[in-house]
Amino acid sequence: MSNHVSVGQYLLQRLYEKQVHHIFGIPGDYVLGFYDLLEQSPIQHVGTCREDGAGFAADAYARVKGMGAVCVTYCVGGLNLTNPIAGAYAEKSPVIVISGAPGVKERERNPLLHHRVREFSTQQEIFSHITVAHTALEDPLTAYREIDRVFDAVERYKRPGYIEIPWDMVDRVTPHRRVPMDIAELTDMCALEECLEEAVSMLNEAEQPVILAGIELHRFGLQDALVQFAEEKNIPVAATILGKSVMSEAHPLYLGVYEGAMGRAEVQEYVEASDCVLILGAFMTDINLGVYTASLDPGSTIYVTSERLSVKHHSFHDVPFRSFMAALERASIRRRPHPDLPPRPEDSLEEQNPNAPITIKGMFHEVDRHLTEDTIVVSDVGDCLFGSLDLRIHRKTEYVCPAYYTSMGFAVPGSIGAQLAEPRQRPLVLVGDGAFQMTGLELSTVAKYELNPVVLVLNNRGYSTERQILDGPFNDVHGWEYSQVPALLGQGRGFVAKTAGELRESLASAFAYTDTFSIVDVHLDPYDRSPAMERLAKRLAARTNKEPPPIEAGEETRTVPA
Amino acid sequence: MSNHVSVGQYLLQRLYEKQVHHIFGIPGDYVLGFYDLLEQSPIQHVGTCREDGAGFAADAYARVKGMGAVCVTYCVGGLNLTNPIAGAYAEKSPVIVISGAPGVKERERNPLLHHRVREFSTQQEIFSHITVAHTALEDPLTAYREIDRVFDAVERYKRPGYIEIPWDMVDRVTPHRRVPMDIAELTDMCALEECLEEAVSMLNEAEQPVILAGIELHRFGLQDALVQFAEEKNIPVAATILGKSVMSEAHPLYLGVYEGAMGRAEVQEYVEASDCVLILGAFMTDINLGVYTASLDPGSTIYVTSERLSVKHHSFHDVPFRSFMAALERASIRRRPHPDLPPRPEDSLEEQNPNAPITIKGMFHEVDRHLTEDTIVVSDVGDCLFGSLDLRIHRKTEYVCPAYYTSMGFAVPGSIGAQLAEPRQRPLVLVGDGAFQMTGLELSTVAKYELNPVVLVLNNRGYSTERQILDGPFNDVHGWEYSQVPALLGQGRGFVAKTAGELRESLASAFAYTDTFSIVDVHLDPYDRSPAMERLAKRLAARTNKEPPPIEAGEETRTVPA
Repeated sequence: MSNHVSVGQYLLQRLYEKQVHHIFGIPGDYVLGFYDLLEQSPIQHVGTCREDGAGFAADAYARVKGMGAVCVTYCVGGLNLTNPIAGAYAEKSPVIVISGAPGVKERERNPLLHHRVREFSTQQEIFSHITVAHTALEDPLTAYREIDRVFDAVERYKRPGYIEIPWDMVDRVTPHRRVPMDIAELTDMCALEECLEEAVSMLNEAEQPVILAGIELHRFGLQDALVQFAEEKNIPVAATILGKSVMSEAHPLYLGVYEGAMGRAEVQEYVEASDCVLILGAFMTDINLGVYTASLDPGSTIYVTSERLSVKHHSFHDVPFRSFMAALERASIRRRPHPDLPPRPEDSLEEQNPNAPITIKGMFHEVDRHLTEDTIVVSDVGDCLFGSLDLRIHRKTEYVCPAYYTSMGFAVPGSIGAQLAEPRQRPLVLVGDGAFQMTGLELSTVAKYELNPVVLVLNNRGYSTERQILDGPFNDVHGWEYSQVPALLGQGRGFVAKTAGELRESLASAFAYTDTFSIVDVHLDPYDRSPAMERLAKRLAARTNKEPPPIEAGEETRTVPA
Repeated sequence: MSNHVSVGQYLLQRLYEKQVHHIFGIPGDYVLGFYDLLEQSPIQHVGTCREDGAGFAADAYARVKGMGAVCVTYCVGGLNLTNPIAGAYAEKSPVIVISGAPGVKERERNPLLHHRVREFSTQQEIFSHITVAHTALEDPLTAYREIDRVFDAVERYKRPGYIEIPWDMVDRVTPHRRVPMDIAELTDMCALEECLEEAVSMLNEAEQPVILAGIELHRFGLQDALVQFAEEKNIPVAATILGKSVMSEAHPLYLGVYEGAMGRAEVQEYVEASDCVLILGAFMTDINLGVYTASLDPGSTIYVTSERLSVKHHSFHDVPFRSFMAALERASIRRRPHPDLPPRPEDSLEEQNPNAPITIKGMFHEVDRHLTEDTIVVSDVGDCLFGSLDLRIHRKTEYVCPAYYTSMGFAVPGSIGAQLAEPRQRPLVLVGDGAFQMTGLELSTVAKYELNPVVLVLNNRGYSTERQILDGPFNDVHGWEYSQVPALLGQGRGFVAKTAGELRESLASAFAYTDTFSIVDVHLDPYDRSPAMERLAKRLAARTNKEPPPIEAGEETRTVPA
């Protein structure tokens, strides 16, 4: 390994090796030297309007491409990243955060340098709570291995890592020979053998086995392995909300999204009637479990994730997710006849009166017509998420949404990362008006880099999920003329749709126009909602009651395996 | 004290007592119960587009009114506040952060509830780094005193405090009699007497004493005390950058802003020639000290802040800022004849050719004509800050700017807090294009609450401070048509000014129009800058050199007292 690579150059080399070809962020004086190196490297810098926009973009980039990176200045930049990086942590998206910092030398007398909050270490301490590994490269002798350590942890756990680089360390070169780290993931072969044996016998004895597929299948590159296994054994697959699109929704073995009582009844019935549920890479979160309306008997489950492996009521240690999956593929599991699955919902919405107001259901139906293999759906939260669960993504459409952490404002900046990670895919962005007012002006970045998403603003003048829980004037947002965004940015096309007919025409024009972005202001009734949203809101509404908490003992026991 | 007030009601009562009549924020399901209480209280909720906008607004509100508050939901809301609250911490602005949280009861089985990052305590741990006191109200028996404790610390140290309230605690009432906390600030009278004696003798023996006034005079309500003391003794006053406007700039004893070699030479010469500099409530930060070009001999200084009291090279403990100031007022300090001060810069800019391009100098000259006693200047960073230091605020104009922490994006949301805190004052907002793209769409909130700032966007297509340090394509921002913002928001008036004549006309129209906001798109040459910015940039540019750090030993010793 060359000894003549500076600390900054080494960091860029490591990123490029990991297919990180874009770094999102905003410069500042403490990080300008690194930006200068970045400009000379083969990696493209993508300048966003805000740091949190860069964070969401890097998160989406990581979800599509396997790793993402964001680069900002000290505190005034980095502290704007805490929310998107916390989201990436919660949903296991491997993002490398790079932050400039005051020079090591200039700290000697502990001066009050600008952007400093309390201690020089304050920003790193904050990121220690929301990253899986963190370092400040304050010594060139350890910097290279520290970079290796953070990269290793980020790859292993698929969570963000934090690398702080004081401006006077960027160009430092270590005089020593660099020894790369050699880190392997260990498998306890006896534990693997034992749990595999149990899993195989449960699967072989089961009358109606089913796979519940979660997002980690995507994070750990196991999507093809899932499909191959399901097809060989003819076991049907349901997805969690967060796992939506880990498998093509057009696949004959695909059941639908399972989310307890919140989802389609026939999917719930099929999954809950199963005598062997193989849960692969799913987080058992409240929203994934239909706010605890899911009812799975742990005695009938095999639960496999990167963090836990349980069969029925007991757990195994030191069996990595990938090792288990590899062993499962080779195991003697009997092939069954193709299962008899509940029918898919028909594409049954009757032709709407073009003069009728737009409903959420009608809107998703209309959107569905435009999805192709080259569409990536990037969804914000609220009814963009709940409504889109019924979106019949018949083709191999990608679907990206922060379905567990559920931070508003993900979708527009997320679409930038998604499209740069896979330029072949055109984003369809679903975003509420409240969320658009948070980060929607990142369409400026879309314009700057000549991307071409179609953006639907679900305009119902407020925070609709909250309206369903407890309404009040605090849920209202100021009305914007979203179709005027192109006039502000000097690019793009804007549409207003107040009727079903206008929506159809707007979408047709928006999808036909591929030069740059389109934005459609979709007027909705403030109290219209998807059935899933209605059921969710009823559960959450209990939170605002004067009574003690609504979740009864035993309710959770039925739902969280092991 | 009533025993029948719930935890949530008590928190609102405490805020109202402290003159907090507005709370900024965005609701979310974990905090809706508290929002419901807020709606029933005499305090007005102000809904912003983004949480960081709410944070900046609360910070500015606190700077004008003495305390501010922001209320958000758990993690997805709270973590968007870290940057503005870090800024409030760094610049001593007393903001109470209120966050909802998952219910205490529902945490028992450690479930993955939505918005959770790692531990239930993760958000509180993050805020522990950027607040002076923090609490999670998880027990009704301690909740009331915990609220008292946080309020006390916030008032005492003028820094932000964090209060997390799980949704199931909002309506809880303690069955016990509540005992209010009784906390007094202690003064070591012997230490006070000793340091006062030394200070008095230094002042009385001095030939040319001068006061260097900092922002804490404002934070601790000592502005009138300063003016009275200066007038009684006829001692002239210079202000630090952060302290600009603690004293009327029209006062005959006011010298100007002192910032080492970065400011006006005659102010620097006068202050540095003094044989007794009484530094009151100033933070000795890099920018306050002209990036260490200030040259003050500690042997000639008396340095008094809420954190440190030093005379020459020794320090005193347990002498609060206010105690020292009260004692100083009563001390026997001789009255001198009115000092002979260097002349103020003349209002000397020759009449500009109306067809000439706009210069930064010319712009500030033009702005100056419109300032009245009822204007509050809210400035963002970069040349909004450096250029405005020469703004001849002849009348008693307030000036608010994050001059130490220097986070971009403060000004537009800050103007909301400033105007709601003092509705008599009309904000003049100075903001760069890069900063406007971060938070400028909070003009939506301005429109919603019918405020009427005049907003000048310094449009030079990039991050100008960085351009001066190290230029590259990463400093470019996408061009917006800022005058189109009113079309997007359905309110306000937009102007474009490309020449001196257009600027004059736009400003006249903008100031004449008082119904709602005006926005002026001021086209500037990307490489035009104020002289102060040029000097600053040269110092910071050394940071990107390949050489070891540029700050030489000894340079700091000359500048940081004690």
